[in-house]
Amino acid sequence: MIPAGKFVVIEGLEGAGKSTAVSIVKSCIEQAGHKLTCTREPGGTAMAEAIRECVKKDWQHETVTTEAELLLMYAARAQLLHNVILPALDDGVWVLGDRHDMSSQAYQGGGREIPHSLIQPLRDITLKGFCPDFTLYLDVEPSEGLKRARGRGELDRIEQLDIAFFERTRARYLSLAEQDPHCVIIDTMQSIEQVHVDIKHAMQQFLAL
Amino acid sequence: MIPAGKFVVIEGLEGAGKSTAVSIVKSCIEQAGHKLTCTREPGGTAMAEAIRECVKKDWQHETVTTEAELLLMYAARAQLLHNVILPALDDGVWVLGDRHDMSSQAYQGGGREIPHSLIQPLRDITLKGFCPDFTLYLDVEPSEGLKRARGRGELDRIEQLDIAFFERTRARYLSLAEQDPHCVIIDTMQSIEQVHVDIKHAMQQFLAL
Repeated sequence: MIPAGKFVVIEGLEGAGKSTAVSIVKSCIEQAGHKLTCTREPGGTAMAEAIRECVKKDWQHETVTTEAELLLMYAARAQLLHNVILPALDDGVWVLGDRHDMSSQAYQGGGREIPHSLIQPLRDITLKGFCPDFTLYLDVEPSEGLKRARGRGELDRIEQLDIAFFERTRARYLSLAEQDPHCVIIDTMQSIEQVHVDIKHAMQQFLAL
Repeated sequence: MIPAGKFVVIEGLEGAGKSTAVSIVKSCIEQAGHKLTCTREPGGTAMAEAIRECVKKDWQHETVTTEAELLLMYAARAQLLHNVILPALDDGVWVLGDRHDMSSQAYQGGGREIPHSLIQPLRDITLKGFCPDFTLYLDVEPSEGLKRARGRGELDRIEQLDIAFFERTRARYLSLAEQDPHCVIIDTMQSIEQVHVDIKHAMQQFLAL
């Protein structure tokens, strides 16, 4: 009987440094001798990537309703969870997620201000109580995060929203992260070197458990 | 102040004769002097049609989860409702829908056996109490409906399901139709002529209200 894999998630606003964090965390897990698969949300399966396209695309004259955006995020999550994450964990493979459910709670719940009473049933349908073993939340001031993201080129439909949207998203992220005993907050307003040290330190502590 | 339009929906299994019913009902509404727009579900907007593609497609090695299927149906419905149906009705235009929410309740609730307690929150999020003014449910025995549908060519992912799935879907359709005071059941196992007479009669009664 192989021990089940662990699900580790990187969360944070645009420009918080998720991609760099993913590569550091990947190295830490692999160095500890675990097999690993990486995912991103929304996406990570052929169908979930098609759903991602629907969500991210600028539909010109068609308003993307907050309801559809929310439902699509959970539809993509259902596909990834049941086709990739759960089978991998069952096989003893670790999974490293670039975003997961905390993103929907922060962006759709905080940013879009959709009440928790509407989001919770979707979590129940999709996750059935499943949650990550460990989450690294990379905290960044929205103005700084967006400045970094803009430096990378074109922003998508969601990334074009106003700063108040990202302030609400960050506030919800912080509140969720503080309440979650399996989440560590990384302050990415520090020097890059210190951020990397903090990420490695947090991962080493989790891997030693 | 223009009086609001009415929302009329055609429901039924594959091969029940929805397309013919749509053209008869369209004529009845237009002859009564109303402006009309026709929709289909899932679909009816650029984004909702992209979502329809996701739902209908055979994703080969990827299982389409019942959860994702359900969430996508409501995501497409949210887009159509807020971008097409509600604005048309507000402008005094009638809307004729080839399928609407009764389909999700029948196929996902009845056919897929998803509990009502999971579907109802999605109805709340998406519809917020909105419902059709009039529904024509075209009843057909599944074996006969599928025979007619097969005659039209290739069946999609959902239409390839076993007969027991369609028996459960029909049973749920009948139970919903019987409980809905704004729904008329048309027996499509009769002669085509009689079916057409019954549809016209039902529409004339509704239009005279």
